Amino acid sequence: MKQKYNVITIGGSAAGIVAATTGKCCYPDKSFLMIRKEKDAMVPCGIPYVFGFLGTTEKNIIPLAPIEKAGIDFLQDEVIKIDRKEKKIFTKSGNEFEYEKLILATGSKPFIPNIPGKDLENVFYVPKNKEYLDKMLEALKGLNKVVVIGAGFIGVEISDQLAHIGKDVTLVEILPHILGKAFDSDIANIAQKELESMGIKVLTNTKVTEITGSGKVEGVKLENNEILKADAVIFATGYTPNSELAKNMGLELNKYNAIRVDSYMRTSDPDIFAIGDCAQKVDFITRKSVSIMLASTATSEARIAGMNLYKLSTVRSFLGTIGIFSTKIGNKVFASAGLTEEEALKNNFDVKTGYFEGVDKHPGSLPNANKQIVKLIVSKESDVIIGGEVVGGDSAGELINVIGIAIQKNTSITELFISQIGTHPLLTSAPTAYPLIKAAQNVFISK
Amino acid sequence: MKQKYNVITIGGSAAGIVAATTGKCCYPDKSFLMIRKEKDAMVPCGIPYVFGFLGTTEKNIIPLAPIEKAGIDFLQDEVIKIDRKEKKIFTKSGNEFEYEKLILATGSKPFIPNIPGKDLENVFYVPKNKEYLDKMLEALKGLNKVVVIGAGFIGVEISDQLAHIGKDVTLVEILPHILGKAFDSDIANIAQKELESMGIKVLTNTKVTEITGSGKVEGVKLENNEILKADAVIFATGYTPNSELAKNMGLELNKYNAIRVDSYMRTSDPDIFAIGDCAQKVDFITRKSVSIMLASTATSEARIAGMNLYKLSTVRSFLGTIGIFSTKIGNKVFASAGLTEEEALKNNFDVKTGYFEGVDKHPGSLPNANKQIVKLIVSKESDVIIGGEVVGGDSAGELINVIGIAIQKNTSITELFISQIGTHPLLTSAPTAYPLIKAAQNVFISK
Repeated sequence: MKQKYNVITIGGSAAGIVAATTGKCCYPDKSFLMIRKEKDAMVPCGIPYVFGFLGTTEKNIIPLAPIEKAGIDFLQDEVIKIDRKEKKIFTKSGNEFEYEKLILATGSKPFIPNIPGKDLENVFYVPKNKEYLDKMLEALKGLNKVVVIGAGFIGVEISDQLAHIGKDVTLVEILPHILGKAFDSDIANIAQKELESMGIKVLTNTKVTEITGSGKVEGVKLENNEILKADAVIFATGYTPNSELAKNMGLELNKYNAIRVDSYMRTSDPDIFAIGDCAQKVDFITRKSVSIMLASTATSEARIAGMNLYKLSTVRSFLGTIGIFSTKIGNKVFASAGLTEEEALKNNFDVKTGYFEGVDKHPGSLPNANKQIVKLIVSKESDVIIGGEVVGGDSAGELINVIGIAIQKNTSITELFISQIGTHPLLTSAPTAYPLIKAAQNVFISK
Repeated sequence: MKQKYNVITIGGSAAGIVAATTGKCCYPDKSFLMIRKEKDAMVPCGIPYVFGFLGTTEKNIIPLAPIEKAGIDFLQDEVIKIDRKEKKIFTKSGNEFEYEKLILATGSKPFIPNIPGKDLENVFYVPKNKEYLDKMLEALKGLNKVVVIGAGFIGVEISDQLAHIGKDVTLVEILPHILGKAFDSDIANIAQKELESMGIKVLTNTKVTEITGSGKVEGVKLENNEILKADAVIFATGYTPNSELAKNMGLELNKYNAIRVDSYMRTSDPDIFAIGDCAQKVDFITRKSVSIMLASTATSEARIAGMNLYKLSTVRSFLGTIGIFSTKIGNKVFASAGLTEEEALKNNFDVKTGYFEGVDKHPGSLPNANKQIVKLIVSKESDVIIGGEVVGGDSAGELINVIGIAIQKNTSITELFISQIGTHPLLTSAPTAYPLIKAAQNVFISK
């Protein structure tokens, strides 16, 4: 191991790995070091599935092989201090390294609301930490009644997986509907029904005031004083950026405590980049700061940082972050891209929408055909697509990327309506009734 | 039924139905009539599946309900003459109708090469005709050894389905590799292996010179004088436009006998539109006349015609046809959009390509994970994506539409590389190794 590297990446989950490998690919003569606290990093979006389909964290490890193969040095250690003037970093184990360019990919940590009882035994949260998750998995084995607090993606997916392995699950959400960041209430209600059909109790508009129990969890107290019996509680109440290092060295943070960056992911120090959950996001459409934490977003930022480390080699034409979400609940897939109708209205957009229900194979008599719903949200003035929501079978996971690219390329609803789409009986809806195109048509009619 | 309609559509498969319903939707005050020879129209791309998964043509009928629901009159009859001067059409049953606007959606019919023995019993072709297909299905029940001639999509899909129901299938192709319109040889070879793993014999670079037998088929003679034993032969040697009506009334045809149209699908007579298989296609990228016959293309043209019947209401920004193909062979999906590398080189493009093999779920340890391959073809000078090919699980059927939209929106490889994609463990590859993005990265490296 050298004392001096051209580029050092702090953090080695999705963002850190992609930034390092992309950087090394663009600047093969530079030396790269990746430092990470954890021996094994969890596939972040795979974490809910260690509770069910995967059954173990061992199957959810991001392989380190691409780092080694790329000729990037790896060190398991914790960076505790950075001297920007001397361009040096210091680690917990007493290592010291000089850098030319630094990439902060320090990720995020669970946000836990300050509720009485949150430190009781069998109260869990969902950090991206293998050791913690291993202990949690072990503890959950003997516990039946689980209350999950927070119905974002992590809360919903963990509920789905715990129900799948036979737990008695209640999902509590403070907002009027579940998955509020990604879906309007019409679509979210379909998702809620799907959870309920799996035996999960879903309580929306419901605030938790206390976790009860002496020593161990016994219940969850709601604002109306009702107590839900519980053997375990899981907080899925969001994440907050790991930005202490950045703060301590005087980099600017935004109101979400995320590190401020420009379009090329440069922080207020031009030799330091920040990417992924620890870095600021500006919404693609509203241009407002938002808190979107997605591995897919993180890797896109990582590619931009990696390419532009030493020179601005790539004009960044996609300005800003677009949340592209997908999940599976029971046998139904729910996916969204861009703004929901509710979010668009809140941001003072005049919107028109189109909705269509079809089937994801054709003829619909084919085995395994699923209902497919597409909802499109369009800016009334500019005619441009600003959001889309999809419900369907597994293919909805890629269909949402069709909408995602259309949004990123500022596609008008007319263009989308007459665009050419590939269809196949076994794989997609019929060309005559392709829900994405039919939803676009219904936007017209709504004019 | 009236004697006079504002708009008459001749033909009522995918294109005719969508043109009529779109037209009625845009011009609700106009009266519409759709005339079709067939009582029931087959879902065109579903036809191969009547031989296997569907088992009957009854399950492969395009529903007529959208026509009735839209308030469009329907008549089963055959148009035999059109008087453009008087703006009148005449049918076989003696009906006469006046029109203001006419839409020709007369489709295509099988092209059969003039080979000795092609009229023997148990020699079949694949028309979009329920009665013919019913008889063919019945006849095939007692026949075991089937030789399919032509390894385009129809030939490949019918071979797959016949093997699925236990027939002994040989697939013969005159060109160097199968599915040549949509795939380069590297990808086509994977498809060929998949067919072979199902027990299908595939002969490429092989020309059929004669169908042998007395009365009934007994064999298929090849150029090298070898004879393949056969109980049945199926010609899947392409389709040719049904353009006799158009020709007889003096509309211009192109070298493929397709009806010449402009960007708004208007023929040389401004009150007559032509769409779908009977209408000319100009390639989106090369700007050359091509023979692409896809229901998805046809419906896109139908939407353009329907919207622009009485006024040019929609600027057509996507100029030209892009073939977006997908199919499933055994358990693998093969899909393509735009130009293949071979086609691009033939058209004098300087190309660079990127290739990546990944997995379509993440972690790859999840059940039902499939290998996913993406190959991208990029114009070296302009950096713009001009083609893509995908192999994978079922999600590849929508992934190809991501590439299709990217091509239609003139996306550069840099834009694609830094574009934002939604990923989910159960639905897509990992964000760190999403094959579409990684293939884009590999285009860079190849620079």
